[in-house]
Amino acid sequence: MVSKKTIERLIIYKMFCEQLDSQGREHVYSTDLANYTDNKPSQVRRDLMAIGCLGNSKRGYNVVALIRQINDLLKSHEGIHMTLVGVGNLGKAILGYFRLMKPKFSIESAFDIEESKVNRVVAGCRSYPLSDLRATLKGKQVDVGIITVPGAAAQKVADLLIEAGVSGIVNFSPIPVKGTPKVFIENIHMAMTFEKVAFFSKLIEQGK
Amino acid sequence: MVSKKTIERLIIYKMFCEQLDSQGREHVYSTDLANYTDNKPSQVRRDLMAIGCLGNSKRGYNVVALIRQINDLLKSHEGIHMTLVGVGNLGKAILGYFRLMKPKFSIESAFDIEESKVNRVVAGCRSYPLSDLRATLKGKQVDVGIITVPGAAAQKVADLLIEAGVSGIVNFSPIPVKGTPKVFIENIHMAMTFEKVAFFSKLIEQGK
Repeated sequence: MVSKKTIERLIIYKMFCEQLDSQGREHVYSTDLANYTDNKPSQVRRDLMAIGCLGNSKRGYNVVALIRQINDLLKSHEGIHMTLVGVGNLGKAILGYFRLMKPKFSIESAFDIEESKVNRVVAGCRSYPLSDLRATLKGKQVDVGIITVPGAAAQKVADLLIEAGVSGIVNFSPIPVKGTPKVFIENIHMAMTFEKVAFFSKLIEQGK
Repeated sequence: MVSKKTIERLIIYKMFCEQLDSQGREHVYSTDLANYTDNKPSQVRRDLMAIGCLGNSKRGYNVVALIRQINDLLKSHEGIHMTLVGVGNLGKAILGYFRLMKPKFSIESAFDIEESKVNRVVAGCRSYPLSDLRATLKGKQVDVGIITVPGAAAQKVADLLIEAGVSGIVNFSPIPVKGTPKVFIENIHMAMTFEKVAFFSKLIEQGK
C-alpha cells in the first residue's frame, strides 16, 4: 500500500506538471519538482521510481509521461464521484466550486435535514432529504462523501455515509469525525487554518 | 514561540468547547478533548497547562474559561482581517463563506487582474484591480492574505502580498508558494485532498 504522504506528493508533482504542460514545457528535472514541493530531489526520484517513472539525467522527466503514469496510478480516468451532506453556506460554496470541475470531479447528490434546502437543484446538483441518503446512494459508485454540516451533527452524518457504503470522507465540519479501518477520512479545519495563520501573522507583526 | 501543532490543537479544543457551550455543557474532561482531537489526555493536559488552564480532577475543565483563555492567547477579540486575490470560482465561494462569519472573520478587499471582475461588489466585498493592491492595503491591518488565483500566478501574488506587508498567507492555488521567514504561509491543496481521498477510497472498495 502506498503511503498517504507519498500519494500527496505524487498528486502535487502531477499538478505541477499539468501547469508545465499547459506552458508548453516538455521536460522537468527532479530538482524543479523538489523545489516546488519543498522536498529533496532524492525524495522526488524515489517517489517517481516507485511508480516506474524514470528520468533522464540530461533532460529530466517527460512531463506528459509523468502525468499519465500518476493518473494511471490514481485511476483518474474513472473520475471522482462524490456526494455532499449539508447544503448550508459552505456546502453551497463547495457545490459551486466543483460544478465547473466536471467531469473529473462530480458531486452527484446533496443531502440536508432542512425541508427548505431539499428537493431542489443547488449549483447544478439535486438535493434530497437526509433520510433518503441510503436509498439514493444504493447501487451508485460514491468515492468521496463531503460533510459540511455543523460540528455537532458531523459524526452522525459520517456514520450514515459509512453505513451507505461510502469509503472516503472529507469532513469540513469543525469537529473531527472517526470511522472504521475500512474508511479513509480526512478532517479539514477551514476556520482553524485561518485562526492559526492569523495568530502567527499577528505574532510576526508584533516582532516587526 | 508556541509551535504550529500546539496552536492547531488549542484551536480545535476551543471549537469543541464552543459546541459544548452551545449545548449547555459547563465542564469537559481532558479525555473528552483527547478523544475528539485524536490525542492523548496527557497531551491535552500539557497543552492546556502551558496556557495556564488548570482542570479539576472531578469535573474537568470549565468550558467557558477554557474558551476565554484560548481566545485571549489568539487575540480573537481583535477579529481576523483578510484580503483575497483571485475573484474566480473558488475566490467567490470563499467570499460567500466568510460573508456570514463577520465580525470575527472579515475579508475587507478582493483583487483580480481581469477588468470584468474588478470595481464591483462580490459577496459583499469590494474588488479592485491587482495593480492597486499595495495602495489599497496601505495603512490597513491585514492578518491574512488569501490566494485563489491559478497556480502559475500564485507565487507572484504571494510576493505582492508580502511586499504590501501581509504577514500571513493561505494559498488555495494548486502550486505551493514560498515566502520569507517573516511570513507565515499555509498551502492548502483542495483538489489534491479530494484526489487523495478518492484514491484510498477506491483502494478500499477493491479490497471489499
